[in-house]
Amino acid sequence: MAKKRLFNRNHTQDSRELGFGTTDARQQRLINRDGTYNYIRIGAPFYETFNVYHFLVSISWIKLILLIIAWYTLFNFIFVGLYYLIGIEQITGMMYSDARSKFWEVYFFSAQTLTTVGYGRINPMGFEASAISSLEALTGLMSFALITGLLFARFAKAPAKLMFSKQAVIAPFTWKKQEITAFMFRSVNQYNTNLLNMKANVNLIIVEEDDDGNENRRFYGLPLERDTISFFPSSWTIVHPIDENSPLYGFNKTDFEKTKIEFMIMLSGFDETFDQNVFMRYSYNEKDIEWGAKYIKLINYNEQNAVTVDLSKLSTVEKMPIDHLLPKFEEKV
Amino acid sequence: MAKKRLFNRNHTQDSRELGFGTTDARQQRLINRDGTYNYIRIGAPFYETFNVYHFLVSISWIKLILLIIAWYTLFNFIFVGLYYLIGIEQITGMMYSDARSKFWEVYFFSAQTLTTVGYGRINPMGFEASAISSLEALTGLMSFALITGLLFARFAKAPAKLMFSKQAVIAPFTWKKQEITAFMFRSVNQYNTNLLNMKANVNLIIVEEDDDGNENRRFYGLPLERDTISFFPSSWTIVHPIDENSPLYGFNKTDFEKTKIEFMIMLSGFDETFDQNVFMRYSYNEKDIEWGAKYIKLINYNEQNAVTVDLSKLSTVEKMPIDHLLPKFEEKV
Amino acid sequence: MAKKRLFNRNHTQDSRELGFGTTDARQQRLINRDGTYNYIRIGAPFYETFNVYHFLVSISWIKLILLIIAWYTLFNFIFVGLYYLIGIEQITGMMYSDARSKFWEVYFFSAQTLTTVGYGRINPMGFEASAISSLEALTGLMSFALITGLLFARFAKAPAKLMFSKQAVIAPFTWKKQEITAFMFRSVNQYNTNLLNMKANVNLIIVEEDDDGNENRRFYGLPLERDTISFFPSSWTIVHPIDENSPLYGFNKTDFEKTKIEFMIMLSGFDETFDQNVFMRYSYNEKDIEWGAKYIKLINYNEQNAVTVDLSKLSTVEKMPIDHLLPKFEEKV
Amino acid sequence: MAKKRLFNRNHTQDSRELGFGTTDARQQRLINRDGTYNYIRIGAPFYETFNVYHFLVSISWIKLILLIIAWYTLFNFIFVGLYYLIGIEQITGMMYSDARSKFWEVYFFSAQTLTTVGYGRINPMGFEASAISSLEALTGLMSFALITGLLFARFAKAPAKLMFSKQAVIAPFTWKKQEITAFMFRSVNQYNTNLLNMKANVNLIIVEEDDDGNENRRFYGLPLERDTISFFPSSWTIVHPIDENSPLYGFNKTDFEKTKIEFMIMLSGFDETFDQNVFMRYSYNEKDIEWGAKYIKLINYNEQNAVTVDLSKLSTVEKMPIDHLLPKFEEKV
Repeated sequence: MAKKRLFNRNHTQDSRELGFGTTDARQQRLINRDGTYNYIRIGAPFYETFNVYHFLVSISWIKLILLIIAWYTLFNFIFVGLYYLIGIEQITGMMYSDARSKFWEVYFFSAQTLTTVGYGRINPMGFEASAISSLEALTGLMSFALITGLLFARFAKAPAKLMFSKQAVIAPFTWKKQEITAFMFRSVNQYNTNLLNMKANVNLIIVEEDDDGNENRRFYGLPLERDTISFFPSSWTIVHPIDENSPLYGFNKTDFEKTKIEFMIMLSGFDETFDQNVFMRYSYNEKDIEWGAKYIKLINYNEQNAVTVDLSKLSTVEKMPIDHLLPKFEEKV
Repeated sequence: MAKKRLFNRNHTQDSRELGFGTTDARQQRLINRDGTYNYIRIGAPFYETFNVYHFLVSISWIKLILLIIAWYTLFNFIFVGLYYLIGIEQITGMMYSDARSKFWEVYFFSAQTLTTVGYGRINPMGFEASAISSLEALTGLMSFALITGLLFARFAKAPAKLMFSKQAVIAPFTWKKQEITAFMFRSVNQYNTNLLNMKANVNLIIVEEDDDGNENRRFYGLPLERDTISFFPSSWTIVHPIDENSPLYGFNKTDFEKTKIEFMIMLSGFDETFDQNVFMRYSYNEKDIEWGAKYIKLINYNEQNAVTVDLSKLSTVEKMPIDHLLPKFEEKV
Repeated sequence: MAKKRLFNRNHTQDSRELGFGTTDARQQRLINRDGTYNYIRIGAPFYETFNVYHFLVSISWIKLILLIIAWYTLFNFIFVGLYYLIGIEQITGMMYSDARSKFWEVYFFSAQTLTTVGYGRINPMGFEASAISSLEALTGLMSFALITGLLFARFAKAPAKLMFSKQAVIAPFTWKKQEITAFMFRSVNQYNTNLLNMKANVNLIIVEEDDDGNENRRFYGLPLERDTISFFPSSWTIVHPIDENSPLYGFNKTDFEKTKIEFMIMLSGFDETFDQNVFMRYSYNEKDIEWGAKYIKLINYNEQNAVTVDLSKLSTVEKMPIDHLLPKFEEKV
Repeated sequence: MAKKRLFNRNHTQDSRELGFGTTDARQQRLINRDGTYNYIRIGAPFYETFNVYHFLVSISWIKLILLIIAWYTLFNFIFVGLYYLIGIEQITGMMYSDARSKFWEVYFFSAQTLTTVGYGRINPMGFEASAISSLEALTGLMSFALITGLLFARFAKAPAKLMFSKQAVIAPFTWKKQEITAFMFRSVNQYNTNLLNMKANVNLIIVEEDDDGNENRRFYGLPLERDTISFFPSSWTIVHPIDENSPLYGFNKTDFEKTKIEFMIMLSGFDETFDQNVFMRYSYNEKDIEWGAKYIKLINYNEQNAVTVDLSKLSTVEKMPIDHLLPKFEEKV
């Protein structure tokens, strides 16, 4: 009972409004730190929920290259099988006579056809071998069309890697001419690309017990001091002022540690270099909050008087007492 | 007369406002279940309304591959014709002397040129044969440029496959603190891709007789409890509350069965994985409505306490009595 | 003087607001019927205003293919020159001994290298010839990279061909429960592609004499009965009601014929098939206006009761008397 | 003290609101004339802030081609190393016997494999050589996939080159029926491409001393007479009227010369030809401002009465006295 009173519920946001469905609270996080969702699709056959392109775009480069080599080997073996089926005497120019060496000569003839390198020492003579090799060259061209596109799509995908401060802080903040506290975290574009029209969206999820003892998630949209910026050459500190309208109003350090909390962060913008919309998700939970701290300045000047942005200090804070800024207990109830 | 009174016409939407033109009611559906329109373009020569790219992007993979093989064979035959025209004695390296085998040797020489595999055993010697084969290689490269792009464009096209519940339901619903009924259907992202900023648009088409006995379509934009969601990791139940402003207000089960109705659904959003806008259309008619039923929960937890979304239960409903929630007959008139 | 009074100037739009600059009226049309602008850029060297890609995307397919062949021939000649420079005795496998035949053998060796077809009968032997041919193969691959992309970009460009009615009409129109006249034209999607979220923008340019006898263009944004539609499976009649706020209010047939007028039409939307924004411009001048006419219905049903859209009737009108709907002369002044 | 009073601070814009962070004033410009930012990212290892694609898209064509040739040579040497490792007696068809010539024969065999030109005189015989060459052909195809895409992405990148007038001017201007002065600059689309829905954003940065003698930047968003245009066939003069709300109100020529000022210009729009969003940045400082001048007309007619836009006159101004339009000193204080 006492715990619930800590929250200001005027601005509760329906979880369905965000598209997260209604969930109870057994699971810790809905969004992982790397931005992926903690949702698993079940009850449908694998092939119905599996999208080849999405899979090939999402796996690591190493895995993709191994898959390409596997595909290359498999297709060579398939065509080798076909050449054996029609009789490898239709392939001319081979140099070896033992069966094993012959097999590999056919295999590499196939590889030379699939890649269209076509040295030509080994080449097809009969009708069937010529027909199969002409289809193999076509197969090679069409497969490499997909591989070409896929490799480039991955290569040219905007990285959208913002660095987020390791912790969020509860810091002193001047808001509407009053000294209060605010929830803050900091973000910086890891790359040298131009991000424009950035937009921030922060939601708070608090796990609360209902009267029957079941834990339920409650969603709160957190109003921000400023939720858009036009340019992003430097860092961006995103600030939610904890005033009377905040669900965190009256929360103290102990409350924070006792409660299961998740801050869901979503930043979106446009990457000018890649001509792509970019979306980034991040999440802080109660263990990631630092009580009474302030980020230090990232921006400085080098010897040439150029502005420098020091990425190594992204998560560096200095301690700041804030307990005197909290509303007194009497105000809470 | 009696029938017409069932409808609340305050919010009729002009069919022209949606871009569907003015149509009378002979045809059953304007949008098919697979999202295509039931409109046929006539009165213009085929080539004026036919777009090659659109055709090649829309046909099945099987058809496309057959078309590519057909193109490949056709171009080979065309170039074979050219080689015969200038005299095939300009092609050197052939092994056979009978006319039929010679023909196929020329054919496969052409195929080796078009794919640029160029084994080289068979190769052009005279000026004309060399000139033609150098044009054939160019033709091959340019054709495969189009085929490459086309295959990849299809491969990388966002699938935009939402699964929709097989039926829509009329279910009890709490709206502005009153117990009423609502029209509902449910949708889930079939794939594991990230959809964002989803928007729903539902229009009702009712076929009504006018005073002269002609049947006309009437379009109603249906206000939704909520028509956008920011994220879409889970399912989305789209709800039209049947209050006094709804064209369905006062409708009972018999009215539903007697009337020709079409609910046109349009969902749109942004697919983050594919960096593409996606659009989905769907349609329910009077036979697809289940009276007095409610969807069961899709979201659950597995042993690892991860959220699961059970796609197999998308269309599973439980019966719910709703007749007591309908406005009495007196209220209707 | 009398002429000017015909116009209602309350809603004049500044030409600069549209981005057309301030121009006097010597030229007839600012936008051609095919949607291109009548603006010529002068005063800068050619290479500064010329964008290769834009040029290659805009020319006809025939011209593009001729250009590719020209490039192919040119590059072959350049590399032939290099091979002669280092001495063609470094190229082995040639069959002819006369200089002319030798030249062409080197030429086609070059072509076989540039296209990477590489038959291999003719092949480089010495260091310099090998080095040049390995650079030629690289040049070929890089050139065909650009050609591949270019061909596909053209192929996959949304055609955005709306058909517009040949004429615009002044027709009777019911507006705010009053019988008045309206300026109308009609448009239909020529292809079977899905256009969405269409937006129309109509501007009127009237050439007027000022007190010094100079003719000046005046721009009026014309309010439309409806300027957006969500879907576009059928035709769209765009309507500007000529009420008291219209610059055409009080205009009669003779006024129309005596005045230099240009209606600039801009339609934009999203092509779902091509995942591209599409923009279309069109223009009607005073000679393209039909006085007192109404478009006939395009939509009908075929034997299968499917909706048909008859493109051949796009510009078919029936005469309608409208003179009685015009405001009397007294109202004008 | 006196200096500061010149500025009207009602509309100060927070630098953080724009995403530039809080900076003091040691550096002259935050945005260079070519639109790049003067921000340097430090404190993170190179590989974390370096994006290969962004680098390869941004360097000059010359550098890129040199890099491609370097990659080509490097990969050839690597594969030559592998062939020597397994023994070059596995490669057949070589013509020379001295070690150095042999080396180059192997090298060019490698080049013929990597480019898939595969003449075939020199070709692999043993298992290991065949296996390595089949991997080399695969490597070649995958590398050229990336190179192909990269070259085309650069080729098809909308140039977004607006020409800006070399200087900005302070010119007389009629605003709300009063004769005042305005800050103006002029821009024109350098190319013949179609730009649409252009938007302008102008920010003023003034360096001011605070009471402790530190120089600080202050950001002011400048309201424009008009900040969007729909089309852009001609030139666009962007105008900030210096009325009582302007931070430049009361500024005279001497004030301008004594103060460190930066006007940050951002134009954005949509390039119809390239189907891309385009963004342009520009910057004027106090030395780029011309006091009391007006741009001359760019638009004229040629002999065919077509509208001409004279790019060579973009920065041509005529002198205009404006001192009488400035508010008197008494008004300032």
